[in-house]
Amino acid sequence: MVEILDTTLRDGTQGEGVSLSVDDKVAIARRLAAFGVHLIEGGWPGSNPKDAEFFARMKGVDLGEARLAAFGATRRKGLLPEEDPSVLALLEAETPVVVLFGKSWTLHVLEALETTLEENLAMIRDTVAFFAKRGRRVVYDAEHFFDGYKEDPGYALATLEAALEGGADTLVLCDTNGGSLPEEVYAITKTVVERFPGVRIGIHPHNDAELAVANALAAVRAGATHAQGTINGYGERCGNLNLTSFLPTLVFKYGIPAIPPERLRGLKELAHFVDERANLTPNRRAPYVGEAAFAHKAGVHVSAVLKNPRTYEHIPPEWVGNSRRFLVSDVSGRSNLLAKLQEVGVDLSKEEAKRLLEEVKALEYEGYAFEGAEASFYLLAHRMKGGGLPFQVEGFSVFVHGSGLSTAWAEATVRVRVGESLEHTAAESPYGPVSALDRAFRKAILGFYPELADVELADYKVRILSGQEAGTNSGVRVLVEMRRGEERFATVGASENILEASLKALTDGYAYALLKPLLERALTGSRGG
Amino acid sequence: MVEILDTTLRDGTQGEGVSLSVDDKVAIARRLAAFGVHLIEGGWPGSNPKDAEFFARMKGVDLGEARLAAFGATRRKGLLPEEDPSVLALLEAETPVVVLFGKSWTLHVLEALETTLEENLAMIRDTVAFFAKRGRRVVYDAEHFFDGYKEDPGYALATLEAALEGGADTLVLCDTNGGSLPEEVYAITKTVVERFPGVRIGIHPHNDAELAVANALAAVRAGATHAQGTINGYGERCGNLNLTSFLPTLVFKYGIPAIPPERLRGLKELAHFVDERANLTPNRRAPYVGEAAFAHKAGVHVSAVLKNPRTYEHIPPEWVGNSRRFLVSDVSGRSNLLAKLQEVGVDLSKEEAKRLLEEVKALEYEGYAFEGAEASFYLLAHRMKGGGLPFQVEGFSVFVHGSGLSTAWAEATVRVRVGESLEHTAAESPYGPVSALDRAFRKAILGFYPELADVELADYKVRILSGQEAGTNSGVRVLVEMRRGEERFATVGASENILEASLKALTDGYAYALLKPLLERALTGSRGG
Repeated sequence: MVEILDTTLRDGTQGEGVSLSVDDKVAIARRLAAFGVHLIEGGWPGSNPKDAEFFARMKGVDLGEARLAAFGATRRKGLLPEEDPSVLALLEAETPVVVLFGKSWTLHVLEALETTLEENLAMIRDTVAFFAKRGRRVVYDAEHFFDGYKEDPGYALATLEAALEGGADTLVLCDTNGGSLPEEVYAITKTVVERFPGVRIGIHPHNDAELAVANALAAVRAGATHAQGTINGYGERCGNLNLTSFLPTLVFKYGIPAIPPERLRGLKELAHFVDERANLTPNRRAPYVGEAAFAHKAGVHVSAVLKNPRTYEHIPPEWVGNSRRFLVSDVSGRSNLLAKLQEVGVDLSKEEAKRLLEEVKALEYEGYAFEGAEASFYLLAHRMKGGGLPFQVEGFSVFVHGSGLSTAWAEATVRVRVGESLEHTAAESPYGPVSALDRAFRKAILGFYPELADVELADYKVRILSGQEAGTNSGVRVLVEMRRGEERFATVGASENILEASLKALTDGYAYALLKPLLERALTGSRGG
Repeated sequence: MVEILDTTLRDGTQGEGVSLSVDDKVAIARRLAAFGVHLIEGGWPGSNPKDAEFFARMKGVDLGEARLAAFGATRRKGLLPEEDPSVLALLEAETPVVVLFGKSWTLHVLEALETTLEENLAMIRDTVAFFAKRGRRVVYDAEHFFDGYKEDPGYALATLEAALEGGADTLVLCDTNGGSLPEEVYAITKTVVERFPGVRIGIHPHNDAELAVANALAAVRAGATHAQGTINGYGERCGNLNLTSFLPTLVFKYGIPAIPPERLRGLKELAHFVDERANLTPNRRAPYVGEAAFAHKAGVHVSAVLKNPRTYEHIPPEWVGNSRRFLVSDVSGRSNLLAKLQEVGVDLSKEEAKRLLEEVKALEYEGYAFEGAEASFYLLAHRMKGGGLPFQVEGFSVFVHGSGLSTAWAEATVRVRVGESLEHTAAESPYGPVSALDRAFRKAILGFYPELADVELADYKVRILSGQEAGTNSGVRVLVEMRRGEERFATVGASENILEASLKALTDGYAYALLKPLLERALTGSRGG
């Protein structure tokens, strides 16, 4: 059994371009817990107010069997732990688990901390003891352990001794600079495992030489039973251990329990969820979870895979929630689509499925993407079954006016046909044009459908499609997430005009909210009887 | 010494989204030769006409010490090599080196080729002999060698024997499905090396478990002296061995000669050149060559790196032609900011630096993020030094009108003060409101600054800040990338209104383009002067 500590929310956010709001962090923590991660390192409360707010918010959140951890440094030189504001901030996070990092490498002690080797040992011992005495489980992260060990093995081991004397429960060997080699990691981890029998030893690798996964596996083979990494390998510089690659290899290839195999079927979805929250484009080439990970080209590969998938697939893609794709064949397109509809119990004839596939392809050519927008996809299937929509937008306008470069003001109008009636409404908003459009649209339909009053926009993302070539003239895709109580549904709109794309996604959201009970009845008719 | 075969032009183009014209391929081949790669596998002439054209073109190209290789399969079952059109196409490529692949795995022989184990051995032996007798150096790629060996070691070794009998010069063990583990690769390679003393043994890994680099290194440690991979790890599914990661580790960490260390200083440039040619966005997080590979974000890291780079860098970035960067963000402290300014030689007093830091924090609280927007950050520093901006936006308006939900149309006006003059201009665009704003703004300033005519918007990203809580009412951050020839600069704007945020980022881009020479003089005055 290898215990998994996920640090997407802490070390992951050190990655360039990775920025998560407190809401994002709470949502990701819930998903990680549901997925089966054992420890969730949520932030560094001593370092910034956003992380402190996160821990305050998490006090009311039930994570099931997962436990929340907060990260922090050993006390400053020359202070008592109880005098150090960072140590106190960490205590105030009130997490059952505390991850404390300290220095293992003499270079760091002497040149970065500018203190003595003895004082560093005391800093480790005292700070661990401070938390252990207050009932916290202390995971001790030995920063730069491998570099430190190579320079002065005796001192590196002495820092681990100090953490144990303080009451640390787990000793984690960090390859902080990410440049260690698998055989070094194996040998040094083995030495530590043998030196501290009965103590849980962990590994925290970085990917600066593209060896983080190999290094984590080497440590596990040497006896480590705790591993720290991030979803999609987010992290400082080249990133941390990519759990999305490490976990399936550990579980399926080594047969070592960590996350139950059935939970790994949610791996791709989890990886994409985290990318969505971070507003990062998923890496198509990502091992296991990338769109291309099980994509085969035509010819020999495809025909061999059709005869026996083992010929060109190292594991069955469904084990990680991915699927096989044949890049030049639209047969695969149709089977994916049918699989997707079967998933929700939709009963389409062959002819309907074919037309739906054609429509999806035409819309994707225009810039739509239904993977993250299932509500829009179900609305399409609904129309394919001959279903109508509760309203039709017939026109809109938006006017934005700004003085200087602040206090811009937006006004919108919409023309919406609802049954026999044509509603023409207007609204304004200090929050910009999408907000004004939303307000005008709600005015038009709430009279007819008062039950939509508690449906609201939860999230809104924009992506420019043609990338760097076209600039502002390029197409825009808007993904919208709507909320009704605990329920959420995602929709998509695409256009050359950002406001038009936004209105399309927005109105799909309201239509889906309205049609959902109906859709569930109609689309699952053949199944539910 | 490890011989390097680059297959970017062959296996690399099997990657999803990788497409190279014949011109691209010729240009890349020249660069690879200049870089010091030993063998350049240019294509599969039997499989497509583009590759045949490439080899025809290459007949007049001088590659210096590098040698060109063409790729192909063993003859079809039941044919003589001289009767097989693919074998003849490979011969017509007239390359000094031929890479032939054949089957090692009984599963593939029986289920994919649908032939006998004996006939497969004859296919290997005959085809290798066909080329060896015609004076070609034959590199034999044993497809699925590791999977085949695990299923039937005797047969897998017999296929290598057959290739040797035919006259193969190098035996390459391929992990075609990319799922092998480093310790398996080590053990199996060692067996092969010991079984065929004096024969050059090679490794060809794929990255399906994020272990390609580790597997190549394991093979080299077991005695392999030839490795096949691609620049940036392009290739089928998750990609091939990433030479861009493998080479510096091999040379700098293992001290094994492959590419001369001084040539590795061109590694980052080569990696970006290949991405440019393939029209792919470079991976910021790529080991060694990524923009983020030596980028420091955490405050603690920055202050330590300033004292001694070894504290958080596994190799000096200049060894691979990369450079150190300090990211400015809300998790970083004052040391990042000062380091960032030192990077460009800005001379701020302590007082100015403090005010700048306060301004950055205040703006980040409003939603700005300077991490990806260095041009906006330099403009801030410029203002802190008392510098003025070439223009001031005093107002704007945007009107968007749509009928139905398509063919929306946008018109914008801007009021801009340039020196004594107040310009009030209008423009329209079918590409949406940001495009209309850009057009109106260019109208206002191009008369004064005609040199801005060749500055254009290159990329545009939008992020909603407060996530699920605020919906459309939330703040918006816009990141813009502007382009002038080869030069690129990134700016940021934030506001509750998406169009206002866009205009802020856009006008910062034009201001920076204009001020850049001045900024460089003024900000670096204390250093250059």
